[in-house]
Parts: sequence; structure tokens; C-alpha cells
Amino acid sequence: MTTPRSSLARSRTIDWDGADILALDQTLLPHEEKVLRLHEVDALAEAIRSLRIRGAMGLGVAGGLGLALAIRRAQEAGRDPVDAAGEAAVVLAATRPTAANLFWGIEHVQNALAGGPEAAVAAAAALVDRDIAANRAIAEAGAAFVSDELLRDGVEQLVVMTHCNAGALAGVEVGTALGVVGALHERGLVREAIACETRPLLQGARLTAWELARLHIPCSLVVDSAAAGLIARGEVGLIVVGADRIAANGDVANKVGTLSHALAAQHAGVPFIVAAPEATIDPECPSGDQIPIEERSEEEVLSFGGIRVAAEGVHARNPAFDVTPASLVTAIVTERRLIMTGAGELPVQPAVAEA
Amino acid sequence: MTTPRSSLARSRTIDWDGADILALDQTLLPHEEKVLRLHEVDALAEAIRSLRIRGAMGLGVAGGLGLALAIRRAQEAGRDPVDAAGEAAVVLAATRPTAANLFWGIEHVQNALAGGPEAAVAAAAALVDRDIAANRAIAEAGAAFVSDELLRDGVEQLVVMTHCNAGALAGVEVGTALGVVGALHERGLVREAIACETRPLLQGARLTAWELARLHIPCSLVVDSAAAGLIARGEVGLIVVGADRIAANGDVANKVGTLSHALAAQHAGVPFIVAAPEATIDPECPSGDQIPIEERSEEEVLSFGGIRVAAEGVHARNPAFDVTPASLVTAIVTERRLIMTGAGELPVQPAVAEA
Repeated sequence: MTTPRSSLARSRTIDWDGADILALDQTLLPHEEKVLRLHEVDALAEAIRSLRIRGAMGLGVAGGLGLALAIRRAQEAGRDPVDAAGEAAVVLAATRPTAANLFWGIEHVQNALAGGPEAAVAAAAALVDRDIAANRAIAEAGAAFVSDELLRDGVEQLVVMTHCNAGALAGVEVGTALGVVGALHERGLVREAIACETRPLLQGARLTAWELARLHIPCSLVVDSAAAGLIARGEVGLIVVGADRIAANGDVANKVGTLSHALAAQHAGVPFIVAAPEATIDPECPSGDQIPIEERSEEEVLSFGGIRVAAEGVHARNPAFDVTPASLVTAIVTERRLIMTGAGELPVQPAVAEA
Repeated sequence: MTTPRSSLARSRTIDWDGADILALDQTLLPHEEKVLRLHEVDALAEAIRSLRIRGAMGLGVAGGLGLALAIRRAQEAGRDPVDAAGEAAVVLAATRPTAANLFWGIEHVQNALAGGPEAAVAAAAALVDRDIAANRAIAEAGAAFVSDELLRDGVEQLVVMTHCNAGALAGVEVGTALGVVGALHERGLVREAIACETRPLLQGARLTAWELARLHIPCSLVVDSAAAGLIARGEVGLIVVGADRIAANGDVANKVGTLSHALAAQHAGVPFIVAAPEATIDPECPSGDQIPIEERSEEEVLSFGGIRVAAEGVHARNPAFDVTPASLVTAIVTERRLIMTGAGELPVQPAVAEA
């Protein structure tokens, strides 16, 4: 059992100290680095709903650790830990209906409960290390695939574009899409990274640009709608994004705006890579049109920093995700496989790395 | 000669009172309706640069009226009005390098100077009425084309999407793309209009949503990157946009983000209409890749309402326009022609209306 620690390791986004969850409040970045200590499941649920904790892999870890939190509080109060974990699972699963990893993390720890509460808490804690190892494997596999393709084409350096935040801040450490960018940068292959700002919540401007600066990768920020023009003009050599859910046929649900970039990439013949853990793939979901799209509050669109920008009386629609069909995706890179999509069902390929 | 008036007619965006230019300060909308009285060319140039006066057709009128302003001030100061008009042309042409209409308006009044200063001022003043008549013709022609297509397909009502602001606020009255939406609405064909917010300056959220509300057209605002997902899911029946410059082959330069919508429209088989005055067509420009793309200040992307949103040390790129190839455009509607693009050179078609 982990000894409680008082602070979060600098490179980590979320962690378990044996009693509480420690997590960076991502809504305050890039201006303030504040670590939340979450002691109750309700506080965790609020942190997930308000995007203080976010990112596909981060949500998987948070979901699992949430059950550990429920078990510890139940033990302290003399309640049944199995009941408490079940209640926590219901509360946490309702926070973000599109996030496959969240459900996966919750289910993983619920399954471990068969071995008793301590086994479940240990399984939750192990999610942290497992996530870091998976991200490292994804980053290396993605960079290897891209650099093999580049060497074949004789390209020396690339401008790489990404959307939203699939970096260290989306998981525990390293990141998926930004992990690939970081691994390419370590190989000297990145001339510049372009971060799309990602309206309405600006995860690209606030989080990805912050991470790229921290990695010393030259970075330009653009509004989301500028991406297509830059791609069409041949100014982007590669697009790498994360995923929130991948259907069995390879359709990819990711942050709203991803589809636009994929369409522009196809139009211009630019490779479009999706970097995501295996847990993002939902074999129960046959295709992208079966993926529920979370509609978030219209206030996120109508106002900015609390100041209303839209005319009075106007309503907004705010889908948080869109679906990119498999036919627009060059490859999906997971910690175990490199999947060349576009052929319908996801094929089982030789593992490129084992997490 | 027009008698000076003290105020701007409510439905107009810009006007000439015989001595000064009156113009709505569009940077203050939708919260405040302030009329600027512009007495000097430099004040007009500042108003254009800072987007207080904007929109393709509005810039054409403003360019022409700017020369009238220079002529009047020269006459009052006993200077040569031809010299003053020439100096004003240089100052005004430098304000927005992508706006074909601006150059057209300036040149139109410069040519009229051959008939003397009063003829030039009269030609400038006539631009106002000419713009209104052209917009009415575009609106009716666009609505007739769309409703013919709809009746053929048996559709009763449409969800219409637009980008940026090509409304009354982009010209003097009526508007081009929003003129078409308004004319369709008058025929009972519009179920809902979707306005894309149009980062970075939010002309869609601030101006288009305001105009749609004023026209009592049900309106939803979306972030620009949400458009592709809605289009792909079949939730949009028609896209209508304006244009800042149209090349001889039918390629369309318009506000950044237009290309994304056109790619999504092609992907989903949704008609994509460009509504613009003839003056937007630049026969000297063979294709879209010859159109200079204005790069605006990175501060527009890095900050919002004076508050920095991006991480410190991050730079931004801020292209104000993108180019949509003719092959993605269903039709271009002008005040004189309906042009079915995609066939290379713009064909000369029978006039659908005469302005």
C-alpha cells in the first residue's frame, strides 16, 4: 500500500497517494499550477464534469481511482466497500457519457473487487503505472511508423499539427498524440508543431501550447478553422490526434474539430494518425454513428471568460465530439498495434510494443 | 448633392451625408450601436484596419466614399482634389490587402474623377444605392435557385449554415449570404439558421447572430469546428457564404474556415453556395493560389478580450482567409449571374437579374 504523499510529482497530472487522489486543476492552466486533493467521490465527479480532470487516458485512471477512493472512505466509515464502489461507479459513469476510457477504468477496478477491497485498490493504483507505460509504447510506435514513412519519402523534418490536448495532461505522463510528437522531436524530425486552439474550451491554446513550450518544441497556435487552409497549402506534413472512442470499424470519435482536419488531410494527401490506448477501442460499438455525442452547455459557446460574446436571445449548440470515418485515418497507433484503417473491421496486427 | 444628415438610417451600415461618412462601429456590436462620423481619410483607414467597417461590399463602398471624403477635405483646404484622391487611394488600399471590393470601389471613383471632383463625389454616393440594389438581386437570385432545387427534391424546409458575416453589416443593407437566407426565410423555407462563430474575431457570434435575431430567424450558434460534424450527420441542408475575392477559375477566397465547411459539404453531398457581387470576381487573378492571404496580428489568437489565453512564450499564426477550390462550390450567385462552378473557367451565363 502506498504511503500518503503531500504533493504531486511535477511531470504527473494525476496520482494516488494511498488515501486521496492528487490531480492538477487543468482549468487553471497555463496561468496557475494548482494541485487538487480529492477526498470524496463527489468532489472527483465535480472535477471530471468541470474538466479540471480531463483527457481520455486521464479519465480512465480517474475512474478507477474513484472506486479506490470510495472503498477507502467506506472502510473508514465502517460501510460495505462493495456497495460504496457500486454507488461511485454510477456517479462517475454519468459525468462524461462519451468517454470510453472512463467506463473501462471503472469496470477494471470493479472486476478486481472479486479479490477483495485491497485487491481493487491495488488494481486502481496500478492503473497509474500502466498508463505511463502504455503512453511510452504508443509514442515510440507512432514515431517509428512516421519516421519509417518519412525516411522512405526522403523528408528530413516535419510540421506536425495536433488538435485539443492528447498530451501528458490527457493522461498521467507522456501523452498519446503529443507523446508521438515528443518522440519525433527527440529524433530531430519536428520543425514545428501547430496546435489548434480547440474551441470552445481552448485546450489547445491553454494546455497543448503549454506542454509544447515545456518540451522546447517550436509551436504555433492557430484558430481551429485556419487548419484546413494551412493543410491545403502544403504547410502541414502530418496530423496526429488522440481519440475518445474508436468503434470496431475504425471510426474515431475525438474532440469536435477533428473531422475537419481529417477531411483537409485527405484533400491534401497528408497522413492523419490517431494515437490512443487499446482501451479506447470499443469492440461493442460497430461504427461511429453508434457513438453517443456529448452535448455540453451552450454557455461555453455564448460566453467567453464569463463575458457574453453572442447577441442576446441567441442559442448555441455545443457538441463536444465528432466522428472521423476510418476511411480518412491513415493509421491508428495503440500500445499494442499499428492499425492501417480504411479496410472496414479493425484487423489484428502483430504487436509493435507490449505495454 | 446630398444634404448633410445627423444620423445613420437604422437599417444601414454605412452612408454618405454629403460631407462625412457615417458608419456603425461593428466592433461594439452586439452590445452597443454606435455611429461613427468619419471626417478624415486617416480616421476611415483606422476604422477599416480595426474592422469597425468591414465586409466585402461595405469595404467597396467605404473605399469609394473615402475618395469623396478626400475630395471634400481638399476643396475645403484649397488643395488639388485629384492629388488628395490619389493619396487617399494609396492609404486606403493598404488597409486590407485581400479585399478586392475595396480596390474596386477606390478605382471606380478614381475613374469618375475624369469628369471632375463633383462627378467623382456623385459616383461615390451612388455606390450606396448600387450596393443595396445589387444585394437585393443576389438575395432573390440565390433564393430562387435554392428553392427551385428544393422543390425538385421535395424538401419543405432547410437548416441553413453560414460563416462569418455576409449580412447587411457586410454591405450597406440586405447582405449577400444572409440576404439569401433572409429571402429563403420570407418564402417560409428556413427551419433554422446555424451561424458559425468565426474565430478569432467572432463576427458570426457578434454580427450574424445579431442580424438573424433581428430578422426573427431561429438561430443556433456553433463553434467553427462543430460545423463539419453537424454537416456529416445530415443536420445541415445548405451552406451559404459570402466571398472576399473570386478568381477567374471560380476559386473563392473567403473568411478563414470557409474551406472546412466546403470540404464537409462535399463529403456529405450538401449544396455549398457562394453569394457575392460581380465586383468580387477578379478576372486578373487566374486561380485561388494567386490570391494573397492577409496575415493578421497574432494577438487576435493569443488573447481574448484583452486576456491572454495561450501559454506564455507561444506564437500564433493568423491567416484571415482561406481559398475554397471551385470544385467544392455548387454555385456562385452574383447580382447578374448564376455560375455553376467546377468546370474550370467561369462561364458567362444568362443574367438572372439586372442590378
